[in-house]
Amino acid sequence: MSLRFPLLPLAAALACAPLLRADEGMWTFDNLPAARMKADYGFAPDQAWLDHLRLSAVRFPGGSGSFISADGLILTNHHVGRGSVQQISDKDHDYVKDGFLAATRADEKKIPGLELFTLMAMENVTTRVNAAVTPGASDKEALRLRKAELEKIQKEIQARTGLTAEVVTLYQGGEYWIYEYKKHTDIRLVMAPEMQVAFFGGDADNFTYPRHNLDFTLFRVYEDGKPYHPPQHLTWTKDGVKAGDLTLVAGHPGSTERLITSAQMDFAGQFLIPRRLKALKRQRQMLLDYAAISPENRRQVNTQIFGLENTIKATTGYVSGLQDPAAMARIRKAEADLRAKVAADPASPAAGSWAAIEKALEAHKALYQDSTAINARSGAVFESSLLGYALTLVRLADESAKPSAQRLEEYRDANLEGLRKRLTVARPYYPALETAQFAFGLTEAAGDGPVSPVMAGILAGRTPAATAKAAVEGSRLGDPAVRKALLEGGAKAIQESTDPMIVIARQVDGANREFRKKMEEQVTSVLSEHGGRIAKARFAAYGKSVYPDATFTLRLTYGPVATYPANGTLIQPFTTFGGMYDRAAAWGPEAENGAWSLPKRWVEKRSKINPDTPFVFAHAVDIIGGNSGSPVVDRKGELIGLIFDGNIESLPGHFFYDGKVNRGIAVDARAILEALDKVYEAGALVKEIRGI
Amino acid sequence: MSLRFPLLPLAAALACAPLLRADEGMWTFDNLPAARMKADYGFAPDQAWLDHLRLSAVRFPGGSGSFISADGLILTNHHVGRGSVQQISDKDHDYVKDGFLAATRADEKKIPGLELFTLMAMENVTTRVNAAVTPGASDKEALRLRKAELEKIQKEIQARTGLTAEVVTLYQGGEYWIYEYKKHTDIRLVMAPEMQVAFFGGDADNFTYPRHNLDFTLFRVYEDGKPYHPPQHLTWTKDGVKAGDLTLVAGHPGSTERLITSAQMDFAGQFLIPRRLKALKRQRQMLLDYAAISPENRRQVNTQIFGLENTIKATTGYVSGLQDPAAMARIRKAEADLRAKVAADPASPAAGSWAAIEKALEAHKALYQDSTAINARSGAVFESSLLGYALTLVRLADESAKPSAQRLEEYRDANLEGLRKRLTVARPYYPALETAQFAFGLTEAAGDGPVSPVMAGILAGRTPAATAKAAVEGSRLGDPAVRKALLEGGAKAIQESTDPMIVIARQVDGANREFRKKMEEQVTSVLSEHGGRIAKARFAAYGKSVYPDATFTLRLTYGPVATYPANGTLIQPFTTFGGMYDRAAAWGPEAENGAWSLPKRWVEKRSKINPDTPFVFAHAVDIIGGNSGSPVVDRKGELIGLIFDGNIESLPGHFFYDGKVNRGIAVDARAILEALDKVYEAGALVKEIRGI
Repeated sequence: MSLRFPLLPLAAALACAPLLRADEGMWTFDNLPAARMKADYGFAPDQAWLDHLRLSAVRFPGGSGSFISADGLILTNHHVGRGSVQQISDKDHDYVKDGFLAATRADEKKIPGLELFTLMAMENVTTRVNAAVTPGASDKEALRLRKAELEKIQKEIQARTGLTAEVVTLYQGGEYWIYEYKKHTDIRLVMAPEMQVAFFGGDADNFTYPRHNLDFTLFRVYEDGKPYHPPQHLTWTKDGVKAGDLTLVAGHPGSTERLITSAQMDFAGQFLIPRRLKALKRQRQMLLDYAAISPENRRQVNTQIFGLENTIKATTGYVSGLQDPAAMARIRKAEADLRAKVAADPASPAAGSWAAIEKALEAHKALYQDSTAINARSGAVFESSLLGYALTLVRLADESAKPSAQRLEEYRDANLEGLRKRLTVARPYYPALETAQFAFGLTEAAGDGPVSPVMAGILAGRTPAATAKAAVEGSRLGDPAVRKALLEGGAKAIQESTDPMIVIARQVDGANREFRKKMEEQVTSVLSEHGGRIAKARFAAYGKSVYPDATFTLRLTYGPVATYPANGTLIQPFTTFGGMYDRAAAWGPEAENGAWSLPKRWVEKRSKINPDTPFVFAHAVDIIGGNSGSPVVDRKGELIGLIFDGNIESLPGHFFYDGKVNRGIAVDARAILEALDKVYEAGALVKEIRGI
Repeated sequence: MSLRFPLLPLAAALACAPLLRADEGMWTFDNLPAARMKADYGFAPDQAWLDHLRLSAVRFPGGSGSFISADGLILTNHHVGRGSVQQISDKDHDYVKDGFLAATRADEKKIPGLELFTLMAMENVTTRVNAAVTPGASDKEALRLRKAELEKIQKEIQARTGLTAEVVTLYQGGEYWIYEYKKHTDIRLVMAPEMQVAFFGGDADNFTYPRHNLDFTLFRVYEDGKPYHPPQHLTWTKDGVKAGDLTLVAGHPGSTERLITSAQMDFAGQFLIPRRLKALKRQRQMLLDYAAISPENRRQVNTQIFGLENTIKATTGYVSGLQDPAAMARIRKAEADLRAKVAADPASPAAGSWAAIEKALEAHKALYQDSTAINARSGAVFESSLLGYALTLVRLADESAKPSAQRLEEYRDANLEGLRKRLTVARPYYPALETAQFAFGLTEAAGDGPVSPVMAGILAGRTPAATAKAAVEGSRLGDPAVRKALLEGGAKAIQESTDPMIVIARQVDGANREFRKKMEEQVTSVLSEHGGRIAKARFAAYGKSVYPDATFTLRLTYGPVATYPANGTLIQPFTTFGGMYDRAAAWGPEAENGAWSLPKRWVEKRSKINPDTPFVFAHAVDIIGGNSGSPVVDRKGELIGLIFDGNIESLPGHFFYDGKVNRGIAVDARAILEALDKVYEAGALVKEIRGI
């Protein structure tokens, strides 16, 4: 066991970890509960073990993955790679539906724009960042000073290492880190199973267990046109895993809110999330209406619909946690304990923090109407990707004229390269879909109340549908060459442009900036500052025996393959291929739009497969969205599975962990090999994975 | 459609059935909601269809069954027949564990004491019974007069028909019927599968779904030493059943309390059931301790433990229904509606009934301590079967001297034959088990408070264990010949007996009579009288558009094979044999004491079976304990399945029905044939069942 881990006597570790139950924890790689692991499992990873796992892990956009061969083969989930598979599909080749297998390496298909990241190093810069704040500075000023210092450090490190440096804020500002990534930009699709076996059971089974989903996809990283040889990769298990065995997971949990105040939880559960859910359901309906028009329409938006349904089901699960009286009582109790400690020290900077946060939440409530009326995210504005491009072009022209530190955050120097790339990369573009989405976004923004001046200006007396139709028909921004020309033309080209999307972007720009400013001053900066103060108070009380909320950065979680009580019984720790055929036969191919139907190949090859092959397992690990595609390893560090979901009971994990029933759901490594070997007859891949 | 059914226009039927949802209802065979069935399914049974089903159905002790061949073959559940299978087992032949198959008819094994009943006719005697009550009679007097009149009618009918006549009280006294049964007394075991495939998943899976239980057993009825030829029997399906198909079930739901007042539900949920559950769990622990001593001990009490676990799980489910705020609000609303109607009529006899019932519940609370301290059921007293025999012998001697109408109910003429039979039939007797059970019963009766005079007399300063040991060692009542001699010796033999159990029975007798009298005066008679008045008020308001609470008499329920939402997804309407092998492989043979292990035969014969054979299905029918073994038929009246359980969501059905999630669980008829044919190679039975 390495000395890098704080070795507390077990009793002390338990005494100062009031919120932790079972194997709770999404631990940063610098701070594992090694003593507890050792006591519970007779095992704690040493530094070499951890480095091997960290360097084998990769980050996907919104997900996780890992290197599984010396030739840069990457394993992730089908649903993480699905957007990429769809990207290279067209109306004659539906690789999402039919699957894909490159016959030779030469047939592996490059995914334009896809970037993966490997975490090479991590530096704790908390002391330097906090030293940059002048004593007595206001919340807003403190936030500005910290951001400026972080950007400075980020640039320094980027220059020194040549790596992609990212700021990571842990413990709500209790710690600041720079994570240093190697970026991979030539990613090719190697193999994807058919959607229907990868997403067997569809939205109904999503976030549930027992499951039978072959939810994996294989990519390969190339460098200089040749397969990349990663410094580390995971070895495939020879023994497999059984119930009770310890499993460890390295991945990128995206976002949790376990350390926010109970007032913030109430705000989320009673105000914000219910509104968000309603809007998501309206958006899903819009896409379903679009999909109903033709099979080709359905193909265009399938992935988006699945994504929305996923979000709706997940968000509904988060809220259910906030309605669990026992859990909320535990959370309020833990908060009361911490507040009592803070109250005992009149000089504590966190003394007024809970009250300040409550005030900020009131301000957020007041600003809520604006947030929907001036809906401008980076990717799309009013759900229009064209308007998203347009606003980025308009702002790039304006912001480039200012010093980096004074720009809107996403336009600062460190982010410019990515921004330019996203503008110019070619993506599938469907005008009819764009029109439907933009009309929907405008309708949502107009809302039911009085129309804001900005919206009145955009609509100019027309309906949202007519406005959207005219703008999409008139715009040429769907063509990457047009966007490239405008980008290269700079401020002058933008000023002269009469593209209707550019015109609308100019109308949106000011009001959105004003809204962002208010949100930052009245809400974001207060939550950041006082969240940080509470986090520091928590540090003072409990040290790093607690783990930080998820931040879409690399974390380790661990726990055994385990059953759990649900549905009146105990749930089986594994499923088998036989279970998949049971469900397919039980439902038949037509029920629920064929949710439990099987691809032709899987019907034909049934007799080749051993039905008792372990297919999916449930294990007591602490994961959340973003962990999709995470490798599951055993204590030898060998790959035994692939996280692809959590059970329905895992969703309240956004706010708290309940080890009795919260389970990660993983494809068993043995199922992937059996499928590649017996169903896909991909002998070369099987050999590569086995390292033979 | 027969004219025997009251044909209401559909709208009227719906308007006057405030509590009914979906296909709710355990309908008596004289009163089906034919118009609704016709409207919903395009089908309602005619009289011939109903007579065929009724005459094919049989009642088991605590369960249901049906004739399935012209030679008197009977189908029921393994768990209904399990006590019988255990009864003919001994330490060298464990037919429960290993299964049983009679090689020829000559090898079919007679079950001593087992009696089955077929419902030949039903007579509504409400008018005559109510006419027997003198106007202005007190509650107690009215109860006595009704009972006397019913007993008179019962005797008349028994004499006239030669059938077994039973009093059936429907609608809490709203209707009185005599049901006339043909009794079958020569019942032989034909075939039973191994416990481990009949009860696959054990207590964990009990009351849940998806399930994989081959929960059937075959008996044959004999008459005059030859196979009995029933007037009707069910034909086995040729087509099977699929999702959405209408299913109909004839069986004997034991007990529901859907029409009791909300005060009674509160009393059950907050007072009575929690106490009962604690006592049941203590009893389970006592049996588990006994079973832990040796495999032979385990064998002796296995069935009893399963029965207890079943009761505990079911009762826990009932209470969960009473904690469902939405359901309870519906119930209170329906009650308020009815009370408003009653209040509108100042002359209504039910005007004071809710208040009277509340007072009776207070009285029950006050008597509760006595009810545990003077615990005397007919089968066992203080959990001792020997003391049960003894008390019956003592009372028979005393009661026989009185006119029938003045005796304790179970000693009246109509019940004497059954009582004498139960006393003299041979049953397995294990002194060590008897001692453990009696010691437990005495401990429970002694309780934590001050010891009652009766208990003080029995214990005489000894511990319950020492008292039990001495009594069991000294008693000869385990021998049926001894009981027979005492029975035939009459009052004199009993008076002269010094058998310690007879001595204790005499001590218990008086106090128990006194307690019964108080309970009847203060509780039972009030609930009966005022329950009846409320039922009459309900009749006045809604007619027979509602169905009566379950009374362990023949009922018909219907609904489609259907999925339901649970566990975050939709639950499959069928399972297959493949699903059973999936679970067996997923858990392995050792997990949870082998709950999901398979008998050797099922491992060896796996390749013979079609894994896609439908095994178990879920259907939206309204069933409850007592329906076990009920035949499931299609609209042709052909046998398509065998009820063996409800899902966990069906348990609140004791108090209310929720058609969204409440499901009956049935073995598919195709699975039984596949197993008999391929696994048990019982060709003769397959032919007999197929009628070829």
